Amino acid sequence: MVFKKITLIGRSTEGFDAATDDAIDRAEATLNNVHWIEVKEFGVEVASVEGREYQAEVEVAFQLENSQE
Amino acid sequence: MVFKKITLIGRSTEGFDAATDDAIDRAEATLNNVHWIEVKEFGVEVASVEGREYQAEVEVAFQLENSQE
Amino acid sequence: MVFKKITLIGRSTEGFDAATDDAIDRAEATLNNVHWIEVKEFGVEVASVEGREYQAEVEVAFQLENSQE
Amino acid sequence: MVFKKITLIGRSTEGFDAATDDAIDRAEATLNNVHWIEVKEFGVEVASVEGREYQAEVEVAFQLENSQE
Amino acid sequence: MVFKKITLIGRSTEGFDAATDDAIDRAEATLNNVHWIEVKEFGVEVASVEGREYQAEVEVAFQLENSQE
Amino acid sequence: MVFKKITLIGRSTEGFDAATDDAIDRAEATLNNVHWIEVKEFGVEVASVEGREYQAEVEVAFQLENSQE
Amino acid sequence: MVFKKITLIGRSTEGFDAATDDAIDRAEATLNNVHWIEVKEFGVEVASVEGREYQAEVEVAFQLENSQE
Amino acid sequence: MVFKKITLIGRSTEGFDAATDDAIDRAEATLNNVHWIEVKEFGVEVASVEGREYQAEVEVAFQLENSQE
Amino acid sequence: MVFKKITLIGRSTEGFDAATDDAIDRAEATLNNVHWIEVKEFGVEVASVEGREYQAEVEVAFQLENSQE
Amino acid sequence: MVFKKITLIGRSTEGFDAATDDAIDRAEATLNNVHWIEVKEFGVEVASVEGREYQAEVEVAFQLENSQE
Amino acid sequence: MVFKKITLIGRSTEGFDAATDDAIDRAEATLNNVHWIEVKEFGVEVASVEGREYQAEVEVAFQLENSQE
Amino acid sequence: MVFKKITLIGRSTEGFDAATDDAIDRAEATLNNVHWIEVKEFGVEVASVEGREYQAEVEVAFQLENSQE
Repeated sequence: MVFKKITLIGRSTEGFDAATDDAIDRAEATLNNVHWIEVKEFGVEVASVEGREYQAEVEVAFQLENSQE
Repeated sequence: MVFKKITLIGRSTEGFDAATDDAIDRAEATLNNVHWIEVKEFGVEVASVEGREYQAEVEVAFQLENSQE
Repeated sequence: MVFKKITLIGRSTEGFDAATDDAIDRAEATLNNVHWIEVKEFGVEVASVEGREYQAEVEVAFQLENSQE
Repeated sequence: MVFKKITLIGRSTEGFDAATDDAIDRAEATLNNVHWIEVKEFGVEVASVEGREYQAEVEVAFQLENSQE
Repeated sequence: MVFKKITLIGRSTEGFDAATDDAIDRAEATLNNVHWIEVKEFGVEVASVEGREYQAEVEVAFQLENSQE
Repeated sequence: MVFKKITLIGRSTEGFDAATDDAIDRAEATLNNVHWIEVKEFGVEVASVEGREYQAEVEVAFQLENSQE
Repeated sequence: MVFKKITLIGRSTEGFDAATDDAIDRAEATLNNVHWIEVKEFGVEVASVEGREYQAEVEVAFQLENSQE
Repeated sequence: MVFKKITLIGRSTEGFDAATDDAIDRAEATLNNVHWIEVKEFGVEVASVEGREYQAEVEVAFQLENSQE
Repeated sequence: MVFKKITLIGRSTEGFDAATDDAIDRAEATLNNVHWIEVKEFGVEVASVEGREYQAEVEVAFQLENSQE
Repeated sequence: MVFKKITLIGRSTEGFDAATDDAIDRAEATLNNVHWIEVKEFGVEVASVEGREYQAEVEVAFQLENSQE
Repeated sequence: MVFKKITLIGRSTEGFDAATDDAIDRAEATLNNVHWIEVKEFGVEVASVEGREYQAEVEVAFQLENSQE
Repeated sequence: MVFKKITLIGRSTEGFDAATDDAIDRAEATLNNVHWIEVKEFGVEVASVEGREYQAEVEVAFQLENSQE
């Protein structure tokens, strides 16, 4: 069974752990069989938000099911 | 709200700006909430086309909606 | 017509060629117009499988059709 | 208006979030218009400090004002 | 005489050439002796602007004068 | 005196700081003279563990003693 | 038939598209069977020219003929 | 339990799969608990051997035991 | 005696080993003193060929002779 | 106290050590508290100078003082 | 016979050649069969030493013997 | 006039400066109009030579003349 990787950017006002969790939470809400994630980049948005928004760009690897494109 | 990034390759006979726009146009035709793009690579195809085809490989970042996979 | 690239990880107990083919086979089963692939990384899983599982992470480029997201 | 990026290394005995905040705090103390930061590298200094010092090397992007060099 | 490199992000609604020129124009407005620039990354901002804003992150190399920090 | 660098992957159910500390703790348990570490990659294992396991791949630099290989 | 890649740097006072074309024009003047090019780096020379000289470093891929070295 | 990664270069006159296996075989001969490997680079030595020697530089990840340095 | 490196792309319908050999064969047909090769990238062409064409982009290092340019 | 990194290019007709020293000398002439430097790139200019000019692009890390921007 | 690569950081007050030799000397003092080294990074430590300490981070490749771990 | 870049590996028993000069000397012996070089990698060969052979892999940029291929 083939794995597929997609790229998500999670966001949090708390820190990088929570921003990473935000991306994994979203992946698990719509995908079965999430296996692992790899962090690609961390950043912080300052100008367009109140306070600071921590961001985690991650690659999410999940096992493709038969009907998935 | 989580962002997702996808990778598109736009093409144009005019130049790299137009090839980049080609990819953004396609993204905006099927996705709401496109936020930004990052250029990954520029190239030119010569052998299999008439004249020259400028190509722009870009990552498109957009905000995921609730129902999107 | 714009190209899109997705990232798949094919797997095989035989070797890297077969792992790469595994990813291409899966792409062609659900996508028309696969044009080329680029190998991103080779690895071998040892601990969680019997014997050795060769893995090929590849980017698959295909031509987007009108209705595809 | 053009953005400028500078590279700072924030430090903290607590962890990587606090080390990142340390760099942003310093940037905001002397610069108006900080827009975003990108994490370049995380490290931990052990030998020359008591305990552990978490370090975050970040690029800080801010909007240049007219008189700034 | 030593060179120094700084990182600027030029912006334009026209395209990548003009965004690059925007950064060079700004550098030449406050610095003597700009020698060359290197493009680090091209991007396009879509969500927070009207239309599209092409951005060019460049490194500007200039010759340091005696009194410059 | 020459430094040597080795690569460890620390793991934690709490977050990336604790995963990094896990690797440093292990290094200090068997090595004298650990000087600094550099984070190479963060990831999260999901499928083969309960909950989420944060992982930190780090390079540990320590001063070689005379008898060490 | 094997492809060969060579590295050329095209130059233009107009912009990056024209600098890229300059390199392709030169390649096609002496080589048959140019297939594609990949952009490696864009830069602008300022100090040693009048005005600005846009430069495009590209890899040119062409099909080797029997007698070519 | 912490993982450690070491770098080996396997060699074979047959091809890249066999060169990779050569490195894994050597790792398993002296280490318990090899979990996975990542290919870093493939090469072929020609001048100093008869015929061609395929080489695979790989990182081998294994779980550290209590007494291991 | 100085070495020179050139970049070739070998092709095969069989797999990556044969594609690599294809590039080395071509190098040895016109060059004396080929010493080693390094694999830069593997890919597979699908759309413009029958079946699949495995491609290996390699750098070939050889010792320059006195008259060679 | 936060560190800042700047990028300088030192130059010498003698070699890479002296070119690196040239950059450090310049940094120490205007900055207190230089802590370390990292070499980013070595090059040699031939056409626009007599003989050969060795160049060292380095990142200089120094501790920011309270009043520094 | 498999090669292994380890990472050492040699140090010298004289320059980068001597720092590289320092690492090779140390490797040869405890290892038979050192084959080649690759320079990964050069740096200079300023703050914690008298004068300047040139540092060379290198990968040392040696042939593994039967009993070596 | 277009520039071309070629890759040479110079060698010396003295050090990295001399190895770099060795490559430039060879380039200037057969090419007019060498403009600059960029160092790609330094290494040291130990096993197949007496003593140590310092090696410098460099890219040499020169201006193409009309008849050159």
